[in-house]
Order: sequence, then structure tokens, then C-alpha cells
Amino acid sequence: MDMNRQIASLVRPIQEDLLSGAAEIALRAISIFHTVLKLDDSDNAATVRMHLIQTAQALLDAQPAMAPVFHLCNHILFATDNCTTAQELKTECLVALDYYEKKLCDDVAKIADYVLDVIPPGGLVFAYSFSSTVVSCLLHARARGHYFRVACTESRPSMEGRKLASRLAAGNIEVLYTYDTAMGLVLPNCGVALMGCDCVGAPGLVNKAGSLLLALACKDMSVPLYALASTNKFVAEDRLFEFENHERPGSEVWDDVPAGVRVLNRQFELIPVASINAIITEHGFIGPDQVEQQIAQARVHEALKLAPVTF
Amino acid sequence: MDMNRQIASLVRPIQEDLLSGAAEIALRAISIFHTVLKLDDSDNAATVRMHLIQTAQALLDAQPAMAPVFHLCNHILFATDNCTTAQELKTECLVALDYYEKKLCDDVAKIADYVLDVIPPGGLVFAYSFSSTVVSCLLHARARGHYFRVACTESRPSMEGRKLASRLAAGNIEVLYTYDTAMGLVLPNCGVALMGCDCVGAPGLVNKAGSLLLALACKDMSVPLYALASTNKFVAEDRLFEFENHERPGSEVWDDVPAGVRVLNRQFELIPVASINAIITEHGFIGPDQVEQQIAQARVHEALKLAPVTF
Repeated sequence: MDMNRQIASLVRPIQEDLLSGAAEIALRAISIFHTVLKLDDSDNAATVRMHLIQTAQALLDAQPAMAPVFHLCNHILFATDNCTTAQELKTECLVALDYYEKKLCDDVAKIADYVLDVIPPGGLVFAYSFSSTVVSCLLHARARGHYFRVACTESRPSMEGRKLASRLAAGNIEVLYTYDTAMGLVLPNCGVALMGCDCVGAPGLVNKAGSLLLALACKDMSVPLYALASTNKFVAEDRLFEFENHERPGSEVWDDVPAGVRVLNRQFELIPVASINAIITEHGFIGPDQVEQQIAQARVHEALKLAPVTF
Repeated sequence: MDMNRQIASLVRPIQEDLLSGAAEIALRAISIFHTVLKLDDSDNAATVRMHLIQTAQALLDAQPAMAPVFHLCNHILFATDNCTTAQELKTECLVALDYYEKKLCDDVAKIADYVLDVIPPGGLVFAYSFSSTVVSCLLHARARGHYFRVACTESRPSMEGRKLASRLAAGNIEVLYTYDTAMGLVLPNCGVALMGCDCVGAPGLVNKAGSLLLALACKDMSVPLYALASTNKFVAEDRLFEFENHERPGSEVWDDVPAGVRVLNRQFELIPVASINAIITEHGFIGPDQVEQQIAQARVHEALKLAPVTF
């Protein structure tokens, strides 16, 4: 099999992964880069670089909404830009991968410490969709002896809420589980609501559809809502709206649809930053009015720049 | 089989019916009363009356949130109160059933005429859950030559949104269908949102869980939201909160739930009247500030009075 097809077959499961949050997908992307480096037996630096770029582009096509995957690819491509031999390129790439993986884990550990302050003692915490950051933070709090329960919903159509409920229950946290639109019935009993997110930009956060309804309900019911997100979720505005390209097959929502009915299966939506109380990052609480100044003015590697929109 | 068990077995399917709206359930209740009258071979007025009361109580136990069923039972019991023979009682009951059935149909026809005014020409109409009143009004509008499309969602866990989509599509109305929490993605394109409801009281409307999220989203996105409901949905406050007794098995939401996870499956919620633009009744538009004066100060038959709450 040529490298092109191998890369495509490595990335395909990432495209089909509807159960994992953005940080978890980034960890999976790291192991795909490891595999690509191992499979690549070329001793030509340009060829190895081309395969890294192909991998990066395939990952971003597969999960256009997930900022940590973008930052990972961007980090790797810049880190290897000045390498002149295939061996040097592979070595630098491994260093960059290790750095990024450690940073992902360190960021979550820091966020988890801040989250301890918002968990109501003995109270009920609402959590939506699936975020590995949210799971890690809740398990960390439980391990630190904090007692609380979690309410969550199924998260149609992929049901990643079941993964959330199972992980928390396995970690000795009692879970109250219901269907998505019943969130209005449990939120009044919750002391706080937490969500992950896939992207943060000046106009808002991108997360699983339903997050906007959660934000509106939290505001109406005076339940504080925090997004837990490392700053590797922050992106410029052009990248933020990439989520709009992510439409899934309608058959995942209704497989034997009658004539005259069209099924829409978009997974993500934009939640205005003003709709949430704060984003909890590895640097602490970022309020809605501080988001804009946090958007990294980071350089974007030439290979990952988006084509300008044409009308 | 004795009458008691026959009544129970006639009413059981009503309890299991999670796909029908309140007006449709009332029509099914009418045919149950017809069957009970046919099966009842007693020539003792007290016995026939007891069977009617048992049927009424069984129906209200089965669907405590559905006001038209309550009003139907109340109407029948008052209409037959002064009958002294079994035959007279049966005759009066049939007259009352016919009156109520005709009133149900006439009310919907009147509501359908008012609804014509709120459908945006060529626009997109959002409809939530399943309401036979909403379906009738939309089909009526289509039959009158109005062109519009409908967006609706599946309505977990019973998926009565599929019944809605199928009925509308069969009536030559184009339908855009998605999962429930994606309502925030389609509402900005909708010119109006419609819902049925099961009960209306001074504090609010009772309808399928998720209606509150719909109301909050409509307000946020400036989409007018109307509830279509005959005044046979209006009830006093004690009856209004009967919906809180309606909890379904958790297995309907998640059938192989892991240890440590409790499933909540409540079907109904209260939507404050101030959250919607108006209720469209057979008498026209009732604004949020006019609901209280519309609550019928109707007498409640002794056999249907609720036991006072004890602490």
C-alpha cells in the first residue's frame, strides 16, 4: 500500500469517531503521526515532510472543528520546517509530538485544580456531551475526596453521553442520566454545569449541538456554566467556522426515512462567549470579555492555511 | 372477565401510548367509553355509573397530564348524574360522548383558521413533539394552498417526532428533520414555531419535556412561538401539576444501564406562559396576560376530585 492510502486508512477511524472529545482526538492524532513516521522508509526529507503534511491535512479534513488537532499539526510542521535530512526531520517530529502530548496532560491537570473550586460540595454537577477534560477533572475531584453527583444526558445521535456516564460511574461517581431535552428538568437541581469544547474564538465556543440550549437554560435557571478548555482550543476566526463543514450522514439520525423528509445531521454549533460564565483554562478563569485578547496571534503554517472564501 | 379487569385492559394501551397528543388520546378515550357501555350488561343504574367512574379514574391514572381526557370524563359524569335507570344513563352518556367528540373536531377546525395567519408564506415552520392539533392545522393550511416547509425533531425517547414528520410528508408538506438538541441549528431559519400542549393553567403550559428549551431558544432567536390548544386544555392549578406523577421506566431511555447510573424518564415539563407569544384557541389568540382569566372555573365532579396533598 502506498503512503497516501496508508495515511487515509489511519485517519478514517478519526473521522468516524463521534464519541471522543477534542483533547482525546488529539491524543489519537499523536499516535497516528507516530505510526506514519514508523511506516515511512523514505530517506528523502522532502518526501517525509510531504507525508507529514498529508497526514495533517487528512486529520483536519476528518475533524475540522477540533482545535487541538490543528495546533498539534501546526506545531509539528513548524518544528520540522528547518530540518534538512529525513532522519533529522523524524527526530524533531518525535520531540514535537512528545512535547505536545505532555502539554495536553499538564494542561488538564492544571484545569482540574481550578475546577475543584466550582464543584458544589455534596451537590449535583451537570455535564453535557463527552469531553475527556471534563471526565478527568471530575475524576480528579472525586479522587481528592470531593463528594458530588453528576447529571448528564445521552447526547443524540451518537450517544456519547453514555460513554460519559459509564466512565464517571466506573470512577465511583453517582450519575443521574436522562434524555437530552429533559435537561430542563434536572438543571434546576444542579449547582453548576460543565462542558468541554472543540474550539474557542472571539465570536464564541464551538461544541456539540445542544450546548447552546444548555447555555440558554443555565442562564434562565441561574446555573453557572463553565467550559473547560486548554488554550490549545483557541483559534482565529477563519478556523473557528470550519465546523460548519462537518455534516454527517442523515441515516445516523433516521435510517428509514420516508419520502418527503430530509434529515439534517450537523454535529456542532456556536455558543456566544457571553452565554457562559467563564472558560477554565490551564491559566485559570477566562471571562467572556477576556476571550478576545486570549486568541493566540499564532502563526499558521503555510500548509495549513485555509483557502480564502470565494463568492 | 369482570368489568373491572375489562376496563383495565381497555385503558392499558392508553397508558402505553407515548406517540399521541392529548386531543388524540381524548378521541381514543371516547371509543373506550363506547366499548364499556357496550360491554356493560347490567340493568342497575348504580352499577353502570360505577363502571363509568372506574373508567374515568383509570383513564386519568393512565394519562394524568392530559386535560382533554379529564374534561371528557368530567363532562360525562355530570351529564349522567341525574339519570335514574341504567338505560337512561347509557343514553345520556352516548349523547355526552357525541357532543364532546364533535366539540373536539370543531375546536380544531376553528384553531386551524387562526393558524393560517401565523404561517410565513414560503417559510419554514418549526413543530415540536407530536400534536394532532398541530398536524391538523398544518395539513389544513396546505390544503388551502399555503406553501411552507416544516422543521421538526425526533422527540426522544419515544420518537413521536417521526410520526409527525411522516404524517406531514404524507400530506405533501416537505419536512426537514433532525435530532432534538439540533433545534438551535434550524430555529434561526424558521419564521414561526408551533407546539401542542397537554394542559394549560395559570402558572404555565404542560407539554413534552424539551418544550421549555424550545421556548428559551425561540425567545433568544426572536422566533414567535404559539401553542395550539383548545380551551379543553385549560385546568385548575391542582390538576395542572398532576403531570409530575407521570414517570416512565428508565429502560425506555437506556436499557442496559451500568451500575452506579440512575435513569430519569419524566415526560412532561412546565413552560411559563410568559415564555410563549400566545395560545391559539378556538376563541382566537390568548396572550400570556389573559391566561389566568381563561382558566375555567368549571365544577369538578366529586368522583374526579384530587385527594388533598398531605405532608
